[in-house]
Amino acid sequence: MKYGVIGTGAIGGYYGAKLARAGQEVHFLLHKDYEYVKANGLQVDSCDGSFHIEANAYARTEDMPPCDVVLVCIKSVNNHLLKSLLPPLLHDNTLVVMIQNGIGVEQDVQLMFPQVQLCAGLAFICSAKTEPGRVSHQCYGSINLANYSCRDEALFEAVVKDFREADIQTGEVEYHEARWKKAVWNMPFNGMTVALHTQTDLLLKNPATRQLIRDMMMEVVGAARQLGVKGVDEDFVEKMIKMTDEMPPYSPSMRLDYDFHRKMEIHYIYTRPIDIAREAGFRMPKLEMLEAELRFLSFS
Amino acid sequence: MKYGVIGTGAIGGYYGAKLARAGQEVHFLLHKDYEYVKANGLQVDSCDGSFHIEANAYARTEDMPPCDVVLVCIKSVNNHLLKSLLPPLLHDNTLVVMIQNGIGVEQDVQLMFPQVQLCAGLAFICSAKTEPGRVSHQCYGSINLANYSCRDEALFEAVVKDFREADIQTGEVEYHEARWKKAVWNMPFNGMTVALHTQTDLLLKNPATRQLIRDMMMEVVGAARQLGVKGVDEDFVEKMIKMTDEMPPYSPSMRLDYDFHRKMEIHYIYTRPIDIAREAGFRMPKLEMLEAELRFLSFS
Repeated sequence: MKYGVIGTGAIGGYYGAKLARAGQEVHFLLHKDYEYVKANGLQVDSCDGSFHIEANAYARTEDMPPCDVVLVCIKSVNNHLLKSLLPPLLHDNTLVVMIQNGIGVEQDVQLMFPQVQLCAGLAFICSAKTEPGRVSHQCYGSINLANYSCRDEALFEAVVKDFREADIQTGEVEYHEARWKKAVWNMPFNGMTVALHTQTDLLLKNPATRQLIRDMMMEVVGAARQLGVKGVDEDFVEKMIKMTDEMPPYSPSMRLDYDFHRKMEIHYIYTRPIDIAREAGFRMPKLEMLEAELRFLSFS
Repeated sequence: MKYGVIGTGAIGGYYGAKLARAGQEVHFLLHKDYEYVKANGLQVDSCDGSFHIEANAYARTEDMPPCDVVLVCIKSVNNHLLKSLLPPLLHDNTLVVMIQNGIGVEQDVQLMFPQVQLCAGLAFICSAKTEPGRVSHQCYGSINLANYSCRDEALFEAVVKDFREADIQTGEVEYHEARWKKAVWNMPFNGMTVALHTQTDLLLKNPATRQLIRDMMMEVVGAARQLGVKGVDEDFVEKMIKMTDEMPPYSPSMRLDYDFHRKMEIHYIYTRPIDIAREAGFRMPKLEMLEAELRFLSFS
């Protein structure tokens, strides 16, 4: 199968390079790092063992072949670009894997491309692009794949198999459960590390913010419950708190975006789930407040 | 009447100096500025006309005479000091005026001194102590006095009269209404200017935080309503928003405390009203979150 990667950064660079190392044909779209990666390939500095690959690098999707699977790994703030980026990569049976944070990305891409097959990729990984063509993978690395609109079940299963054969721990999960479970961690920690200019460990160390993080997670649980999503419950909240307690001090992607003056993914991480919950009759007041604080910080 | 002022700063310095200028006998307790004020008096740089007074300055309340009226103008974070500071100033009929922010200060001082007569003083003033013995009064300056436990009505009325004769715009207000109305402004703006490191004008300029400020004000209205406090309603919220729109960009006292690494009045401005409302069955989720953020910021 031919794989395309749109957005060869901390996420796309990592998963794409692992697939390529395992022998898959992977085509990488690059932007600023195009010249460098074309000449030097991709380097993954990984806690699981570092490695290097030669990469099929492209500056424009028009130069790439149609692919069977496209991993969309750009920031969701740039999803409007997909309207022009995606078409050259699509054939009749292409599966597009949205490896992005937040709620609502698949809905919006489906509106752009009503016929395209979509699934969600939920990455559990601490990684960062540190230099051109260089990904630093600090810990974790698993991915959950969730079918959104893939009619070709065999294709979906083949992707799961390819990921697993590339030494990526890969789960198959129900779409809504997966997205809302991810939101349980993402909604509190992404924004709070920005709002208080801190890291995950200090938020959990202070009793006031530890309780606040738990309250916010319970708001996500409440929203998911109201929407009829299964499996997002108080036990899962405790599991997320415990997992984060055991993680090294961490700056989530939104904190890095803020620090480097990049646009924050406020829309899909906050506005959409808050709106969806509100329309279903459930309010998330603390997360609403966090959204407002983030809008202020991105405005000023 | 003899007046005592505990805490001769932006508030105590201003009101005490105005009373002294009007001919009242005022005794000022000072801490760091004692030597300076004893030698040089107090200077008030005021939008209403600057003036200077010679001041009866003291470093210890033991050296001050018993007073008929004591204005308590220290930060509420230091109220535990009143246990030793107040007794030398008290006679059988002394009225103590608590010119402080927050909810619950009178209750706690009453527990320390069950017999003492208390009233609340709610200052509407933009002022700051800029140098030793120097108060900068930027705008406003009115005070509302609210009887809490003053048995001697004539004494209370005499204080109101003295304030008015000192050219201080002075209202007489119902205690609970006064404290909760003040909270409508104080709870959103004090903390939010700290949390987002900003000023009142920018919070109202950004649509997201403008709505957040209004939501928080409505939480205070909801709490007051639940507690049966009259006069704290949506119209008052609109009035406060409008007033703040018309104010020059302002850093409330908590922002100044934070900037100068002084202890913030989180307990009386947030924790107490939030607890009182919760005990009455009303939650203030956004203000709870703000409290947690402030605890984090004062901790780190």
